[in-house]
Amino acid sequence: MAKINIDADGVYNDLYEYMFTNFPELRVYFKGAENFTAADVHTSERFRKQGEHILLAIRILVNVFDDEITLKSYARETVNRHREFKLDPLLWKAFFTVFVGYLGTKIKLDEKTKKAWTSIGKVFAEECWRYLKESDFSIS
Amino acid sequence: MAKINIDADGVYNDLYEYMFTNFPELRVYFKGAENFTAADVHTSERFRKQGEHILLAIRILVNVFDDEITLKSYARETVNRHREFKLDPLLWKAFFTVFVGYLGTKIKLDEKTKKAWTSIGKVFAEECWRYLKESDFSIS
Repeated sequence: MAKINIDADGVYNDLYEYMFTNFPELRVYFKGAENFTAADVHTSERFRKQGEHILLAIRILVNVFDDEITLKSYARETVNRHREFKLDPLLWKAFFTVFVGYLGTKIKLDEKTKKAWTSIGKVFAEECWRYLKESDFSIS
Repeated sequence: MAKINIDADGVYNDLYEYMFTNFPELRVYFKGAENFTAADVHTSERFRKQGEHILLAIRILVNVFDDEITLKSYARETVNRHREFKLDPLLWKAFFTVFVGYLGTKIKLDEKTKKAWTSIGKVFAEECWRYLKESDFSIS
């Protein structure tokens, strides 16, 4: 994966600024930040940390992608950890649209790379949906 | 990594039973379970979940091991997530002694495999210690 604007020591990244600017309808899932602007996100310790977490999650996903047991276990844990936020299940896939858009602001993405990300997102989301159904959580 | 007694759907694993039996001095880090026996662990929903989490963490570690940025970021997040438990920093390495012992109850381990696990544990622990020092947390 391209080195986005982050390194292991937690250099700031602006994924959430991008999300709040370009997908403001997703702000509803961030309690207390529903009306945040990109400028509010920029100065927020919460979103600094969350930015680190979400990029680490994507890095982990890419690394475990070919290890089916780990991928399934990771999807399961990720769904459980997000349960309290009552996400629309479609977001497990839609997030990758956000992410690919963000990545495109950092590096030039060719079609092949975009398709690879879409494919990763699809497999991950389908596993999340499978687990949601199996565990009787609501799924639209 | 060997398929230990767990799969993606969360089949029970007995790593914590092994730990509580063979390393009872570590129970002090599990608030409310300081006096748990293996039998108590066995029937505990908390340790069922925690058993899943810790095996997933090991699977992730193995998968990201050769991706330095992700490995560092994962060590950092793992340290932060454990900060509240006030672990002896030596445990970041010592845990792998517990784990290799556990693994040896499941599969036959040759010397090469044991050394590989020790090496993984050493690299991971050293990154945890580096981050602990850098972030001014206490380290013995």
